[in-house]
Amino acid sequence: MALIVHKYGGTSMGSTERIRNVAKRVAKWARAGHQMVVVPSAMSGETNRLLALAKELAPAKSDTAYQRELDQLAATGEQASSALLAIALQGEGMASVSYAGWQVAIKTDASYTKARIASIDDARVRAELAQGKVVIITGFQGVDDDGNITTLGRGGSDTSAVAVAAAMKAKECLIYTDVDGVYTTDPRVVPEARRLKTVSFEEMLEMASMGSKVLQIRSVEFAGKYKVPLRVLSSFTAWDIDINEEAQSGTLISFEEDENMEQAVVSGIAFNRDEAKISLLGVPDTPGIAYQILGAVAQANIEVDMIIQNVSNEGKTDFSFTVHRNDFARASDLLKSQIAPKLGAKQVIGDAKICKVSIVGIGMRSHVGVASKMFRALSEEGINIQMISTSEIKTSVVIDEKYMELAVRALHKAFDLDQTQA
Amino acid sequence: MALIVHKYGGTSMGSTERIRNVAKRVAKWARAGHQMVVVPSAMSGETNRLLALAKELAPAKSDTAYQRELDQLAATGEQASSALLAIALQGEGMASVSYAGWQVAIKTDASYTKARIASIDDARVRAELAQGKVVIITGFQGVDDDGNITTLGRGGSDTSAVAVAAAMKAKECLIYTDVDGVYTTDPRVVPEARRLKTVSFEEMLEMASMGSKVLQIRSVEFAGKYKVPLRVLSSFTAWDIDINEEAQSGTLISFEEDENMEQAVVSGIAFNRDEAKISLLGVPDTPGIAYQILGAVAQANIEVDMIIQNVSNEGKTDFSFTVHRNDFARASDLLKSQIAPKLGAKQVIGDAKICKVSIVGIGMRSHVGVASKMFRALSEEGINIQMISTSEIKTSVVIDEKYMELAVRALHKAFDLDQTQA
Repeated sequence: MALIVHKYGGTSMGSTERIRNVAKRVAKWARAGHQMVVVPSAMSGETNRLLALAKELAPAKSDTAYQRELDQLAATGEQASSALLAIALQGEGMASVSYAGWQVAIKTDASYTKARIASIDDARVRAELAQGKVVIITGFQGVDDDGNITTLGRGGSDTSAVAVAAAMKAKECLIYTDVDGVYTTDPRVVPEARRLKTVSFEEMLEMASMGSKVLQIRSVEFAGKYKVPLRVLSSFTAWDIDINEEAQSGTLISFEEDENMEQAVVSGIAFNRDEAKISLLGVPDTPGIAYQILGAVAQANIEVDMIIQNVSNEGKTDFSFTVHRNDFARASDLLKSQIAPKLGAKQVIGDAKICKVSIVGIGMRSHVGVASKMFRALSEEGINIQMISTSEIKTSVVIDEKYMELAVRALHKAFDLDQTQA
Repeated sequence: MALIVHKYGGTSMGSTERIRNVAKRVAKWARAGHQMVVVPSAMSGETNRLLALAKELAPAKSDTAYQRELDQLAATGEQASSALLAIALQGEGMASVSYAGWQVAIKTDASYTKARIASIDDARVRAELAQGKVVIITGFQGVDDDGNITTLGRGGSDTSAVAVAAAMKAKECLIYTDVDGVYTTDPRVVPEARRLKTVSFEEMLEMASMGSKVLQIRSVEFAGKYKVPLRVLSSFTAWDIDINEEAQSGTLISFEEDENMEQAVVSGIAFNRDEAKISLLGVPDTPGIAYQILGAVAQANIEVDMIIQNVSNEGKTDFSFTVHRNDFARASDLLKSQIAPKLGAKQVIGDAKICKVSIVGIGMRSHVGVASKMFRALSEEGINIQMISTSEIKTSVVIDEKYMELAVRALHKAFDLDQTQA
């Protein structure tokens, strides 16, 4: 008997019929002897429906008071779906109780619409489990020290589930979603992409940060911090699938580096076309120049991803970075109107038609020549590399976005991901 | 400057456009210098939508665990509408904050789906008002001592508003609804019915208990207990109607017996066709007989309204009472199969095609001959009276339901309600 946390996304909770299926699946796990805690999202479409109503009435300027009300509003979606799931479990003959975030003291900071979990009081949940009940806890939300409802931002239910699993010291946190695991790359781009049976926490973090929609990145960080074994699996299998088969399905995000994992050098190919690059050419290469550029960008609340500064040439250097494509125009304006004149830079150039492609793999740590193999594969396809950035488990390149699919397929093949199961 | 509580029903909150109108109206009151607390119902249809989802998933047998979840579910409707109203007020440039029942400690007992308010902690509300904010408090709900959400039953938002007004010692509690006040009788039955400018608390209680849909009876009881001046008025006037005119509109439910009120003997004619009568004929007239009959009925959870026992004749008496028409079959069966045989009663007869018509008026206390005037008016129309029950401020008769409209019109005229404004 183990304590298990299940998390179900909005699609899995999208109708009473689907909620009933979730209840049957959870009841199966409970009847197999597990202590079950379930974290559901709101029914699909509900959060959007509520926020659309708010938007119709919203003040011209979004401030803290408005964001507090957005949270008070949006949190109702998960409270309703959680109660419905508890009712469905009761309908399946299983004792069950649902709690909103504040009722089991999921304490957060007061950053409305993007709060961070500080602590969870698990006493009440344990008492209910000890009575043989399935405990449902609303995803996405918590409560601040003053008793205001907070929400964790989009995808926050993943984080809630992991936080609950960490607080309860659960054996595993199963994230049921509409994909059946983590793939070597997006199967829509590379049909030969294969599901990974396991992926390391660090790799998953890189995959998630590259725009993979499988898991919210904060939930992966949380899982890493508290070493919560996390499994991503499909909620669209039949509810009465054999429980042992189900328990081994999907992708396990692991915190133990086992021997199997050592064998694969590269686990997956990630990509992201939401970026744009900006370069300041001919900047005087003086101490503090990076701060003067990026400090101003950060003050404008623009997040920067890759940063590259070339070696100096005749006291001048070129400085490049990438930002989200939505911030491209604003960042360009800022550089052209304020930063370049101030620093005496020669020119500001930018390009929004780029993409970032990365190879990710914990095996890269101990293997040389991985990056050069990547560059060769791209060069053989005639793809020009515009920027490069590397870390211990990831090598990323910026290329023209028109080559994205070609690059991903070439790399997927070059690193034997078409055949090898990591 | 006074502290005023407004309550808006589901129809008034039925769309973003209507919520905006409510916000404009409340903002007008706040800008006139009042401290404003607003209690909204859920958007119309929302509570039914949620409960319909629950019904699809419900266990075969409704128990406490299920009812707890129903409350957890249904309470989201008011939390959402309250947040939307706060947002709409912010959209009108008015500082505003919304609170769910648990956040301002509307403590109730643990009777899920029909909880009763025990206390309200008004400190937080007062602090927000002192900062110039309009405070929105969810209607319909509270929290029990264990932190479970409770709801007060249908129409519970009226009770919430009155309880908040009592706790805050508000100057007046304004119940905005889809009728423009309390009438001498239902205008659909008597087109000459007139709106009452004031009605006493006791009269209102009798009117409400007779099935008038204007106010939930518990809210009137609560208002009586705490002497909260209550005004029923229309939410369908233009929001920018002159505030002094608005403040005098509708019907004031008053706790002070002023001179005006003494003048009217009868304030209104109430009626109710939801009842059925049952008679036990030839019951031995022994001590405790009433308890033996009604105790068994109460144990079957059937509520009894009128009770009449005739004088004894040859040691036998006839015993009659009325129940809600929905309970008629069950009550008849109970009497025929168990009670009548046990008591040796001669016969059980019943009739569901009856109605109850009452004259209500605080002036009856000090006027003789009111009941006889009622009986004469009915007799002049050839209406046979089947049962009579009287109290200090009400005289009710049970008649054949086919005469209901005729009786109401005759009484409305006989007591000069067509012309006289109470």
